[in-house]
Amino acid sequence: MTGSLAAYLKEKQQLVNDELMSRIGRLSIPSRLKESMKYSAEAGGKRLRPVLLIASCESYGGKTSAALSTSAALEMVHTYSLIHDDLPAMDDDHVRRGKPTNHKQFDEATAILAGDGLLTYSFDIISGEEQLTDGQKVTLIKLLSEAAGPKGMVAGQILDMQAENKESNLQELEQIHTLKTGQLLKYAVVAGALIGGAAKEQLLSLEEYAYYLGLIFQVQDDILDINGDPALIGKPVGSDEGNFKSTYPKLLGLEGAIRQKDVYLDKARQALKAAGVESSILLEITDYFSSRDH
Amino acid sequence: MTGSLAAYLKEKQQLVNDELMSRIGRLSIPSRLKESMKYSAEAGGKRLRPVLLIASCESYGGKTSAALSTSAALEMVHTYSLIHDDLPAMDDDHVRRGKPTNHKQFDEATAILAGDGLLTYSFDIISGEEQLTDGQKVTLIKLLSEAAGPKGMVAGQILDMQAENKESNLQELEQIHTLKTGQLLKYAVVAGALIGGAAKEQLLSLEEYAYYLGLIFQVQDDILDINGDPALIGKPVGSDEGNFKSTYPKLLGLEGAIRQKDVYLDKARQALKAAGVESSILLEITDYFSSRDH
Repeated sequence: MTGSLAAYLKEKQQLVNDELMSRIGRLSIPSRLKESMKYSAEAGGKRLRPVLLIASCESYGGKTSAALSTSAALEMVHTYSLIHDDLPAMDDDHVRRGKPTNHKQFDEATAILAGDGLLTYSFDIISGEEQLTDGQKVTLIKLLSEAAGPKGMVAGQILDMQAENKESNLQELEQIHTLKTGQLLKYAVVAGALIGGAAKEQLLSLEEYAYYLGLIFQVQDDILDINGDPALIGKPVGSDEGNFKSTYPKLLGLEGAIRQKDVYLDKARQALKAAGVESSILLEITDYFSSRDH
Repeated sequence: MTGSLAAYLKEKQQLVNDELMSRIGRLSIPSRLKESMKYSAEAGGKRLRPVLLIASCESYGGKTSAALSTSAALEMVHTYSLIHDDLPAMDDDHVRRGKPTNHKQFDEATAILAGDGLLTYSFDIISGEEQLTDGQKVTLIKLLSEAAGPKGMVAGQILDMQAENKESNLQELEQIHTLKTGQLLKYAVVAGALIGGAAKEQLLSLEEYAYYLGLIFQVQDDILDINGDPALIGKPVGSDEGNFKSTYPKLLGLEGAIRQKDVYLDKARQALKAAGVESSILLEITDYFSSRDH
């Protein structure tokens, strides 16, 4: 990662963190609910989605301040999905980013409600943003509910659970990743561009770009699970090995997975060019997604 | 209930049922997710909230068709809240309206995701309704996310759980009911009036009306638990007795609860008059809420 990209990411991460904490902080709600929502929202890592949204907005000359509330809303939706995915009935995870998961720190009922609260609050935030027109708000809400809802992320989670202990082929693997993680990444790119004032044709190319960005993200995740540094990725390497989940290296071999990532990378760059923003920070972020070490 | 009210409710219930099933039916999503969402959505009872929304819209001369999608969205939010409330970590209920609860019929993970899916889809539906202006959609979405989210229903559920096995006073009891069930009832009335074209001052009076309507609904619920006909209410009478939950009859005695309901009823009627719709179907529905036997 270049020094300028690192500085850019750090600055935007700080903006997102402040917006998130201020949005939750101002709620007059039962204290246990607030603590639980805050606990998971502040446990965030790289803030990839909201930073991507802001970068996309800025690439089209939009104002950062106009994108901030939507980026916080998006991070809340991502956070809700992690809280619910970690529940005992789902992935039954006890630790996330070195801290107890929400239901371990509080209890299951509180975790379910904190997730419900974050999801619902995200629509409150977008519909209340004064720097957006009503038309923009409606489009941003429609796209977010599609990306996160039964046609998007929720479908991906069901398919992911059904795919456990079963061999999936490359097409099935792509479908699950596209729904489960790709939809919110696509939303980040498209929503930012919408706020920034991109034209309709540019949005179509951006959707294609975001599709490949999501896949690059996932291949790299699978690769890091094999040859990553455990101290950097925060979990033991080889944790995908034990279960029967399909991964890119399992399907294509490590070399094949790296080649596949390069194919996706080429397509992502081409789509960015078609979207008229090839020299933007988005290109740097794409390369970073592809070569990140954690 | 008058014959004309019964016919009115039946007609609108049918419209709501059709809209709900068509909205879920058209989703191209994993079959298990769709079945689970459909299962709980079609297990609905009287469809009070969506019918109230339609009645409120019609009271101001609005078109029924313009209110239909928002009324289905509201019923989806209500259904999601029942699915999550029934979960083992929450109320741990096994039967609802004579059928196994969602997590008993499917499994916990599916139930959590079906709830998440219904909640998120509701915002998709409102933002996609062509008979509403962008301004109306934004207001309808803002109000729904406030009513259902951490400031509304989700807060009510947390407080309700915290109030179990603890004596609450009348004020605390009203707060819980206002958040947990009152917010969505208020939404029904206000959203319908907004779609119907009510003026701003009328909306304020309607909010007050809806507040008392919610309390009437709850007092009558508590009264039916003592002197209702088990065959009609679908559960044994006295089921509130065993736990330590506060109810109106426990706090005020049965006679006192009936008097309290009359106080609320008077206030509701006055507010309806101030809202300029005193002769409407809303008045009939109010009386029905107050005297219903199930």
